[in-house]
Amino acid sequence: MTTCSVISLPGAEACAGLVAKKLEAARCGLESRRFPDGEIYLRVADGVDGHEVVVVAQLREPDPQVPGLIFLADALRELGAAHVGLVAPYLPYMRQDTRFRDGEAVTSRSFARLISAAFDWLVTVDPHLHRYQALDEVYRIPAAVVPSAPAVAAWVHQRVAKPVIVGPDEESLQWVAEVADLAGCPHTVMRKLRHGDRDIEQALPDLQALQGRTPVLVDDIISTAHTMAGAVRGLRAAGLAPAVCVGVHAVFAADAAALLAEAGAAQVVSCNTLPHASNAIDVTGAMAEAVRAQQQAARYR
Amino acid sequence: MTTCSVISLPGAEACAGLVAKKLEAARCGLESRRFPDGEIYLRVADGVDGHEVVVVAQLREPDPQVPGLIFLADALRELGAAHVGLVAPYLPYMRQDTRFRDGEAVTSRSFARLISAAFDWLVTVDPHLHRYQALDEVYRIPAAVVPSAPAVAAWVHQRVAKPVIVGPDEESLQWVAEVADLAGCPHTVMRKLRHGDRDIEQALPDLQALQGRTPVLVDDIISTAHTMAGAVRGLRAAGLAPAVCVGVHAVFAADAAALLAEAGAAQVVSCNTLPHASNAIDVTGAMAEAVRAQQQAARYR
Repeated sequence: MTTCSVISLPGAEACAGLVAKKLEAARCGLESRRFPDGEIYLRVADGVDGHEVVVVAQLREPDPQVPGLIFLADALRELGAAHVGLVAPYLPYMRQDTRFRDGEAVTSRSFARLISAAFDWLVTVDPHLHRYQALDEVYRIPAAVVPSAPAVAAWVHQRVAKPVIVGPDEESLQWVAEVADLAGCPHTVMRKLRHGDRDIEQALPDLQALQGRTPVLVDDIISTAHTMAGAVRGLRAAGLAPAVCVGVHAVFAADAAALLAEAGAAQVVSCNTLPHASNAIDVTGAMAEAVRAQQQAARYR
Repeated sequence: MTTCSVISLPGAEACAGLVAKKLEAARCGLESRRFPDGEIYLRVADGVDGHEVVVVAQLREPDPQVPGLIFLADALRELGAAHVGLVAPYLPYMRQDTRFRDGEAVTSRSFARLISAAFDWLVTVDPHLHRYQALDEVYRIPAAVVPSAPAVAAWVHQRVAKPVIVGPDEESLQWVAEVADLAGCPHTVMRKLRHGDRDIEQALPDLQALQGRTPVLVDDIISTAHTMAGAVRGLRAAGLAPAVCVGVHAVFAADAAALLAEAGAAQVVSCNTLPHASNAIDVTGAMAEAVRAQQQAARYR
C-alpha cells in the first residue's frame, strides 16, 4: 500500500486540510520564506520517499506562485516521491487560448507546458473551457475536471425555496441546464444586449418560467462581476425577486462584491476553490475522489 | 544581415535602452497588463519574424516575473524569431546550489532548467558563483558571464584618490585582486570574526597596505548589507578614512542603505545591473559585446 501525502503551497492550507481528511492522507509540512532579492526558499519538512504526493495550490495571483510550484515539484521528485500530482481548484490561464491580435502570447499553451513538465497529473474544478473543448488539448498530462454542478445543485436545493436557475448569458446554457436538472427546478438564460463597449445589459426572453420563483444566477467565475451585476439588475427590472448569485470561482476583483450589493443581489455564494468570504459550497469531497482516481491510474501507467 | 531587436520586460526599460543603443539594434515594444485574477497579458508590438531577439529582464523579485518571461520567449519563437536570448544583468537563484538540509528544494537547478528550456542563450554580469565553478554546471544553454571588474576598476581609478581595494571577507580575494590589478592599486581582504550567529565583525590582517589610502570595499551583492556594514565599522575601528562601498548588484533589502550610512560609509555605489539610486557604474557596454558574441555563435550552431 503506497502512502499518500498532501502538501500545501502557502495560501492553500484550508483546502489541503479538507482534501487530506477526505483522502485519509498524511499532511506533509512545507517551510517557505523569501530572501531579500525575492527568491523563494522551500523545504519539504517530512519524508516523501515512495509516497504518492498531492500538491494543493490556490492559483489566484498565479505568477508569484508559479516558480515555487515548479521548484517544489522538482524537489519532491528528487526526494523520491512515486508520483507528484497537482490539485489546483482554480486553474488560471485558460482565457488566452488563441492569438486574438497579432503578437499576443498564447499564455494557456505556455502555462500548460510548464505544469505538464512538472507534474504527473492535474485535478481542477470546472476550468474556463471556451474555445478548447477539453484540457487535453493543452495539457499533456492526465487532467481531471471535477464538476461543481452536483455541489451547487445540492446547495440550491437545500437553501433556496422554489428556485429557478438563471444563466447570465447564452454561453452558460449547458452548465445552467445541468445544475437545474440536478436541483430539480426550471432554468433559463438571459441575453446580452450590447449598447456599447462597456454598456452591457441582460434581458430575459422567458419571464413565464420565473413567476413566483427565486432567481438563482450561476456563473463559472465572478471576476469583475460586471456580467453578474448586469444580470441582477435585469432581473429586478423585470419585477422579479432579488437574485441569489452563485459563482464557482470567487476571483472577485477589488470592487466586485460592492458592485453585486449595489445591483441588489440577495446573497452571493461561491465554491471553496479560491478562499473568499463568499465560500459556502464545499467541493473538496469530489476533488478527493478525482485525486484517488488519478493516483490509481498513475500506478498502472 | 539579420535584424536585431531588443525587447524589455516591465522594469528593465532603461537597461534595455542602453543595450539597444550600444548594439545599434531596434527596440521592440511590449504591451503588458494583468487580468483581475493576476494572470499576465503580453503582446509583442512589433514584428520579429527572422530577427535575433534580445529580451532584457531585471530579475530582482524574480518570481512574479518568471511566468511572463517564459511566455514572452515562447511567443517570440512562435512569431518567427531566429533566436531568443536573455540578458539578465542580475541572475537570481544562484545561492541554493545544494541541499544544505534534508528536504530543501535546490532552486538553482530548477530555475536554470526553466530558463534553459525557454531561451537560446544567456548573458549576465558576475553571477554569485560559489559552489558552482561556472554557469554551464547548471545552465544547458550557452551562458556568458560579463565581468564587472573592468568597469569597477575604471570607476575607482577615476573617482577615488589613492585607493586601496578591500574585500569584506576571504571569499572576495580573487575578485578584489582583479579589480586592484586593473585599477593599479594595492588590495587586501578582511577576516570575519564570528562572535555568535548574528554578531559578525570583520578585522584587517594587514593595516600596512592601507596607510594614507582611501579604502574601497567591493562585493558582488549588497543585499542586507550586514557584511559590508561590518567591514565599514571594522575599517573605522582601525582608524582608517571612511570607506567607499562598491557593490556590483544593488539588491538592497529595506534598511540596507540606512545600515551603511550609520556604519559611516563615505559613499555607496553600484553597477547598473539592478535599477537603484546607487547606480553609478555602467556595464551595458560590456553586456552588448557579450550579446554580439552570443548572436554570432548562435548563427553558426
